[in-house]
Amino acid sequence: MKQVPLQHFLNTQDWSRDQLDAVLAQAAEFKRQPFGAPGKPRALEGKSIALVFFNSSLRTRTSFEIGAFQMGGHAVVLQPGKDAWPIEFDLGTVMDGETEEHIAEVARVLSRYVDLIGVRAFPKFVDWSADREDRVLKGFAKYSSVPVINMETITHPCQELAHILALQEHFGTTDLRGKKYVLTWTYHPKPLNTAVANSALTIATRMGMDVTLLCPTPEYVLDARYMAWAAQNVQESGGSLQVSHDIESAYAGADIVYAKSWGALPYFGNWAPEKPIRDTNKHFIVDEAKMALTNDGVFSHCLPLRRNVKATDGVMDSPRCIAIDEAENRLHVQKAVMATLAGQRR
Amino acid sequence: MKQVPLQHFLNTQDWSRDQLDAVLAQAAEFKRQPFGAPGKPRALEGKSIALVFFNSSLRTRTSFEIGAFQMGGHAVVLQPGKDAWPIEFDLGTVMDGETEEHIAEVARVLSRYVDLIGVRAFPKFVDWSADREDRVLKGFAKYSSVPVINMETITHPCQELAHILALQEHFGTTDLRGKKYVLTWTYHPKPLNTAVANSALTIATRMGMDVTLLCPTPEYVLDARYMAWAAQNVQESGGSLQVSHDIESAYAGADIVYAKSWGALPYFGNWAPEKPIRDTNKHFIVDEAKMALTNDGVFSHCLPLRRNVKATDGVMDSPRCIAIDEAENRLHVQKAVMATLAGQRR
Amino acid sequence: MKQVPLQHFLNTQDWSRDQLDAVLAQAAEFKRQPFGAPGKPRALEGKSIALVFFNSSLRTRTSFEIGAFQMGGHAVVLQPGKDAWPIEFDLGTVMDGETEEHIAEVARVLSRYVDLIGVRAFPKFVDWSADREDRVLKGFAKYSSVPVINMETITHPCQELAHILALQEHFGTTDLRGKKYVLTWTYHPKPLNTAVANSALTIATRMGMDVTLLCPTPEYVLDARYMAWAAQNVQESGGSLQVSHDIESAYAGADIVYAKSWGALPYFGNWAPEKPIRDTNKHFIVDEAKMALTNDGVFSHCLPLRRNVKATDGVMDSPRCIAIDEAENRLHVQKAVMATLAGQRR
Repeated sequence: MKQVPLQHFLNTQDWSRDQLDAVLAQAAEFKRQPFGAPGKPRALEGKSIALVFFNSSLRTRTSFEIGAFQMGGHAVVLQPGKDAWPIEFDLGTVMDGETEEHIAEVARVLSRYVDLIGVRAFPKFVDWSADREDRVLKGFAKYSSVPVINMETITHPCQELAHILALQEHFGTTDLRGKKYVLTWTYHPKPLNTAVANSALTIATRMGMDVTLLCPTPEYVLDARYMAWAAQNVQESGGSLQVSHDIESAYAGADIVYAKSWGALPYFGNWAPEKPIRDTNKHFIVDEAKMALTNDGVFSHCLPLRRNVKATDGVMDSPRCIAIDEAENRLHVQKAVMATLAGQRR
Repeated sequence: MKQVPLQHFLNTQDWSRDQLDAVLAQAAEFKRQPFGAPGKPRALEGKSIALVFFNSSLRTRTSFEIGAFQMGGHAVVLQPGKDAWPIEFDLGTVMDGETEEHIAEVARVLSRYVDLIGVRAFPKFVDWSADREDRVLKGFAKYSSVPVINMETITHPCQELAHILALQEHFGTTDLRGKKYVLTWTYHPKPLNTAVANSALTIATRMGMDVTLLCPTPEYVLDARYMAWAAQNVQESGGSLQVSHDIESAYAGADIVYAKSWGALPYFGNWAPEKPIRDTNKHFIVDEAKMALTNDGVFSHCLPLRRNVKATDGVMDSPRCIAIDEAENRLHVQKAVMATLAGQRR
Repeated sequence: MKQVPLQHFLNTQDWSRDQLDAVLAQAAEFKRQPFGAPGKPRALEGKSIALVFFNSSLRTRTSFEIGAFQMGGHAVVLQPGKDAWPIEFDLGTVMDGETEEHIAEVARVLSRYVDLIGVRAFPKFVDWSADREDRVLKGFAKYSSVPVINMETITHPCQELAHILALQEHFGTTDLRGKKYVLTWTYHPKPLNTAVANSALTIATRMGMDVTLLCPTPEYVLDARYMAWAAQNVQESGGSLQVSHDIESAYAGADIVYAKSWGALPYFGNWAPEKPIRDTNKHFIVDEAKMALTNDGVFSHCLPLRRNVKATDGVMDSPRCIAIDEAENRLHVQKAVMATLAGQRR
């Protein structure tokens, strides 16, 4: 077999705007016709996807599994280290420790069985300089001979598409330029993954919105890679990007409030001193008073969400909350991604 | 979407006798034709069910999963707290503890992905006054916009239907009135859920049989709610209900012996003093001598069953034991329940 | 139902050479046409298999699950003791310990739901005289009323067929007689199952090859049952069998090198004194120098493989390594086995 480059879905930033728009349009079409156009073969007929979960999942697993089924395909759910083997990702290692198998074999063998591979692998939260290399995902992409889909590692591109589709539905237009978009940090008792924050920043700027990253202190600003992507997106798509630590001015006139909690990168592996900072910023909760400052803005969140910690019951149960629509859209956008990628084989 | 009431399958007592009879007839039909009438679309074609297991399962999981498959559908198996998130069921909680997501979001999101939701959630055995509220099941039913099926919580209605179908097959008639039905407590080293006992009492009286609840002491009588359901069923369906602590008279002339072990409700959360009571009643085991007192009666049990603890090898391996038929019928009745409920969406 | 003998797939030794050849031919056909001949009904249409895993799995689970799907069937994955019940295998036990259900009920009930049952159950590594009875697999075969497939217990017959198919592909002939086949022990930090070694010895002699079992000391020779099977196969199929502890002469002129690590049987349950023996034999690693002694031989391994412990990166990444092809063939041979066995019911 000759080595032609595979198209993976590791990050939206790797895909052209036209490709993203096509996937979003296909997702909207699947939402109208879950089984595709009548009389036509389904997009994944007889095909399969391995869903490799290094971390647990509710929405991701269900939406991929149902999505594959609705397109005539089948998803196999694998949980390395739970139901299967601990995997080695380093090259040249003498594997006399805990790992039983190298990613080279795992990815190559899975590629012989299935047509697509989805990977969820969260950071280990010990050393951000290691976590930011995204080695698990990249290991699969390197050795797999079928397309690999990011099911959330240090970014969450499927969530990005679901989020944008929900905004397009809410505003009744695919053009989101000119909207004021606030990505707000919120409190959570534990330091969480920055993946969804990185993703929101990336896709909101990609869509040309005027983006404010609201967080308690400069230490909560996101990794330089994603700040650079955002800056580049602003250059290319118009819109703007600012970082703010002031709640009132950030919310003022916002069209969209997107909330997420995350741990501050300088404290990776040494979380004790970060905890008091987080604890003093519980007032970042999204509540009715803050939402009243917006331009009748919509609220969303990737879920799961701790009610009355990240957002109040009042915000969550308001008609301006589109988090459930966004969650539903995971199904539709992932079907579109699978349908777009399936059929390639290196 | 307007709020039309959804039909769930939480308890047989919520369904009319006509509805139950129709489901039993449909189940018998599926047993003859597993894929439905030839040339007709299958009952779950393209549809899906989420099976949410808070407790483990062999029969329930396999029978629902295969049942969905045989009708053209797909089952997704979720295990919150194992493969997915710990879920909050209280309203208004400030979720700064262990739970990561509220049932409101879980049920609403799942409802966007699937057509049916099955829930297994056993009591916690600490406080019966809390367990008897059945909050997990009711939480799903409250927030879901698709039908919810009880896969065993504090009752086990799918088992009820499988049991009745096996009895109808054994006796060659759908009319079980006039049969003497003995629900006997048996020993088990641990205090178990009362769900199947509650269910047996409910459905046996519903079918108009003459029911004896045989247990070691008055403390093993079931919860007032199910005793009241049974009394109401006797009023409506004929038949009778008595509680007995005398093994010989209870077995005398019985047509049906149904065994189950359960913990005595007064000892919930304080099981130590209940253990000696259980330990002195190991002679409640169903054995050949007791079965010889019956009217050539049949024996059954919901399984799993500890051999030579709840029933002897001789009873289990006898041709009068219909426990395997009852277990098989789980597949058929659950297909009938899914086929009946699928297609509703609030 | 009358008691006709079921054909199971517990070991290749139970099957005639014609039956094995037919399965291998069918597997090659499935490799060319994954969905079977166009226009014909698929081999598992509407049928199902329960995959019962007492030990974890990557390849086995994925390949069986995808294989069933591609033939129109459905696989249910069960993990007793993880997702389901601890099972009793002894007859006549008073089950007042940990086990909640007897294999008699488990196998009988599963047989009512599915058309095939696959079982993976590794030895417990405490008492080989108990492990060698293969009681879990035999318990399922005894009580099941549908065919049972060995997914690896103390032998691994599916791996055998995948291995042989890969060799047939590599050499371009189904006739492997006259090939020099070396089964070499290699180091691994833990004592491992002898299943694949037993299987390799069995099938290589069955195919009439000239087989050398290479291991550090006589204590690593395999169980008498498999040595006897191999001797019997040599009688019937031609070829030869020798045991060697000399690396150079064993590799010299080899056409096939198959590596596996296993624990020495005399140390079952008392592994401490075996560890220093293993530790002094790390040089059994398959490396480029050893492979240079062969007749341009191919290398394979059942996977998972610890790189640079069992075989070097250079061997694994060489074009003479057919381990990935062998792994792929698991899919095809298992489809052939399932297709051959499905439809029987006792």
